[in-house]
Amino acid sequence: MSGRDLVVLGTASQAPTRTRNHNGYLLRWDTEGLLFDPGEGTQRQLIHAGVASTRITRVLLTHLHGDHCLGLPGVLQRIALDQPDHEVPIHFPASGSPYVERLCAASIGDYPPVHLDPVDEVGAVVTEQPLRISALPLDHRVPTLGWRVEEPARMHLLPDRLDAAGVHGPAAGRLLEDGSVQIEDRTVTLDEVGELRRGASAAVVMDTAVCDNAVRLAEGVDLLVCEATFLGSETQLARDYGHLTARQAATIAREAGAGRLVLTHISARYPDLDAHLAEAAEVFPDVVVASDLQVVPFPVS
Amino acid sequence: MSGRDLVVLGTASQAPTRTRNHNGYLLRWDTEGLLFDPGEGTQRQLIHAGVASTRITRVLLTHLHGDHCLGLPGVLQRIALDQPDHEVPIHFPASGSPYVERLCAASIGDYPPVHLDPVDEVGAVVTEQPLRISALPLDHRVPTLGWRVEEPARMHLLPDRLDAAGVHGPAAGRLLEDGSVQIEDRTVTLDEVGELRRGASAAVVMDTAVCDNAVRLAEGVDLLVCEATFLGSETQLARDYGHLTARQAATIAREAGAGRLVLTHISARYPDLDAHLAEAAEVFPDVVVASDLQVVPFPVS
Repeated sequence: MSGRDLVVLGTASQAPTRTRNHNGYLLRWDTEGLLFDPGEGTQRQLIHAGVASTRITRVLLTHLHGDHCLGLPGVLQRIALDQPDHEVPIHFPASGSPYVERLCAASIGDYPPVHLDPVDEVGAVVTEQPLRISALPLDHRVPTLGWRVEEPARMHLLPDRLDAAGVHGPAAGRLLEDGSVQIEDRTVTLDEVGELRRGASAAVVMDTAVCDNAVRLAEGVDLLVCEATFLGSETQLARDYGHLTARQAATIAREAGAGRLVLTHISARYPDLDAHLAEAAEVFPDVVVASDLQVVPFPVS
Repeated sequence: MSGRDLVVLGTASQAPTRTRNHNGYLLRWDTEGLLFDPGEGTQRQLIHAGVASTRITRVLLTHLHGDHCLGLPGVLQRIALDQPDHEVPIHFPASGSPYVERLCAASIGDYPPVHLDPVDEVGAVVTEQPLRISALPLDHRVPTLGWRVEEPARMHLLPDRLDAAGVHGPAAGRLLEDGSVQIEDRTVTLDEVGELRRGASAAVVMDTAVCDNAVRLAEGVDLLVCEATFLGSETQLARDYGHLTARQAATIAREAGAGRLVLTHISARYPDLDAHLAEAAEVFPDVVVASDLQVVPFPVS
């Protein structure tokens, strides 16, 4: 399995609608499959999307409101049925432990081996390999973590410097592997002929009011998945409930220098998505207002 | 609100499919709304069915396998949002208490006031008014209760006997109310001029292998909702997993003298319902193989 994309499993906020299931976002990233915020019905949305549960390698929760986690038991039971050959770690804000423990034993039946990872709510790195996954606190009504996923920075060899140093063919491979290579009477090091380039990155920001950490999480990411529960006309309501408007989400994307912005978690009060798109596009042009079951390609920067 | 029908919210068994959500059956019976076995996604199926959560007056679980109960938290949160003016009792096999308690506190957020009623697994009557609701154990892999719902028997006045006894007009009303009425020098009692007639009734039988209690629950009911996970070609599989075939379900309906049979809880292995219908109809003609969101009228016997 390779390639990268975002499978949008649901786009509703508190209440689902006829066209929008509760949250669920599967970030497929080479062999990793990061499932964010499986709301109720995610198990079935996976079927509609044609994605096997074995594709899920980790579950990451932003917070423990029902629309972001009530699909966890069903997803786990489906995973148990499909018997993947890997354990599935579940990362979540530490104070949510009692809820996660209930969700992992919510009904009679088989649950797969899971590794519960309560994450420090001041922020933390939960893994470094094969992807660096980190969390920062957001500003919602309950403890909430936004997520950032990035490839480790990698050394790229620069052809003109390789030429100048006389490194050709298999010597370049040895240089990458060993950090240096002997060319005639001289040692050429990786630092001389390469540069460290950041890898691809993505962020998931929900639920939150406007806050600095939203921008930090999204700093330079290729793909930002962000809640946009409301429109600007409901800015006060958004603030009261710890949510974002489409304009605010777009502003976060602009300030962070993000690549593509995917808006989701739309309030049931809006019958269609046109206004969200228009409002966000005024601030940030590369925006998608997600529909259920949409597959958003991972932009190549 | 009046009238009676069954709103079928989901018809899948262990795994949902593109066309079949997990279980969920709302029996609307005048002012009562009995929600049986809310599987995952029931909250959204109610929206698809155009039924408000406030229509639910009780929840009844047959057992605590995930496909029969994982929708409970979502339904409860929806009820909390809609703020009905009644409490919602939840009836379930007593040994399922730990699961039900987890489901009623599965996420952060508002849950409505609920009354948990763990039901004795040897069988019990959970309420007498306005409907008599009773349970009997079935034969599944985990403790499971089938449900029977019936109107209390009521005295019906027989016109020819009223005439013979000289009871006319308002006297008939007083007779019904007081149990007797004075007509000239004679006391006429209700027993003399009326007869006790059983009320309408319904049963929900799932999940189970063939067993006597399935027939007892369904004895003379107007409407029998029954699982038919498999076809006759999988009779051994049905027995191994404590389930019914369409033929077995139809045989239960015939032996019980039921009115209309509604088959559901169909295994994902069957792409359509034609074979279930054909197999059951050979044994019991008044059969419906339910589709999601179908509204089945309550037959008037």
